[in-house]
Amino acid sequence: MRGTLNKELVIRLLKYRRILTQLKSLGFEKVFSNNLGDAIGVAPALVRKDFSLLVLGGNKRGGYNIDYLSEQLGLILGKTNEQKIIILGMGKIGTAIAQYKGFLQGDFEVAAGFDVRPVGLPESLSLKVYPIEELAAFCNANSIQVAILAVPEEVATESHKLLKDSGIRGILNFTPVELKTTPNCIIHNINIGVEIENLFFQVIRNGLSGA
Amino acid sequence: MRGTLNKELVIRLLKYRRILTQLKSLGFEKVFSNNLGDAIGVAPALVRKDFSLLVLGGNKRGGYNIDYLSEQLGLILGKTNEQKIIILGMGKIGTAIAQYKGFLQGDFEVAAGFDVRPVGLPESLSLKVYPIEELAAFCNANSIQVAILAVPEEVATESHKLLKDSGIRGILNFTPVELKTTPNCIIHNINIGVEIENLFFQVIRNGLSGA
Repeated sequence: MRGTLNKELVIRLLKYRRILTQLKSLGFEKVFSNNLGDAIGVAPALVRKDFSLLVLGGNKRGGYNIDYLSEQLGLILGKTNEQKIIILGMGKIGTAIAQYKGFLQGDFEVAAGFDVRPVGLPESLSLKVYPIEELAAFCNANSIQVAILAVPEEVATESHKLLKDSGIRGILNFTPVELKTTPNCIIHNINIGVEIENLFFQVIRNGLSGA
Repeated sequence: MRGTLNKELVIRLLKYRRILTQLKSLGFEKVFSNNLGDAIGVAPALVRKDFSLLVLGGNKRGGYNIDYLSEQLGLILGKTNEQKIIILGMGKIGTAIAQYKGFLQGDFEVAAGFDVRPVGLPESLSLKVYPIEELAAFCNANSIQVAILAVPEEVATESHKLLKDSGIRGILNFTPVELKTTPNCIIHNINIGVEIENLFFQVIRNGLSGA
């Protein structure tokens, strides 16, 4: 099954899993495809299609069993529980992400932050922040494979190299520099400026036909 | 041409435009497809394909003329120059985004921030922050159509409604709540937690075959 999972499907499965964890914590035992569809923003038919493709059985009348669904999703997605990430670049974006409450729902935690100058950080920050020279040793000692990159644009390329040399195999890149996935290191670029410009483009185009 | 622009192509065109603006500011007059490909992380062949689809002529020997490229991209993408956005939710993420240096390259500016409690903001913040009650009037008076949503998860849904009621037609959503695009309001969801989990999934899967 694994070989046929495309990116969009994986993202949906990860979102289903998050919702199921939240529902379980509320004491729910069953869930319907339309509730899951509403929660992750897709049609209920797509939820049912996803689950039938993955051979996750459900009873249309009674809904899906949450425990069973979670277990099956866990088998497909692998256990990310207690996985650790680090943040390189503890400026404003890095510090904000370190304190991002949305992470509390996730199956991972931020183990440490790194910066050339780990000073002037907010007192409310509970994360340990180390000088950049300690990055490689820390990543090796703690088997860190995934990092968030939030350094200034000018040092994005050298920071990328440093992360790869420290054994990092997946990077969520918040710098405006477009980094490239290589066989040993997967990059997801989040370019907030381009996202905004794309919204403008779509809003203007939408305005031509709609409203 | 406009009707056939898919999302990935629009994103690439926006990225080309950013790079061209930077190259122009460096005094460049010509650029090659391999430089543009390197800069935005795609193969040079795709750059040439994009430009030939859009009938943007280039000379393989001498490279593309930057002024001509910029002008043609402007005709396709529309002018976003001097467009304004607002940020709803001036907590850590909202404040960090307001100060994000990557925006300086963009053809837009952050006009104001809004929060239920616009206090305790960093002194370095040059952005004006207003109470949320003033949102609708401000958006109307300044023809704001695009917003960044960075409120706590618990108020994401009501804030979404407030933005729509204030005339906002495009939202970049940083809350973990999945909001849905409607005919009058386009949503781009950026769920940082799901992005990280997706990276873990891919790194683990990658590890099975590689390295």
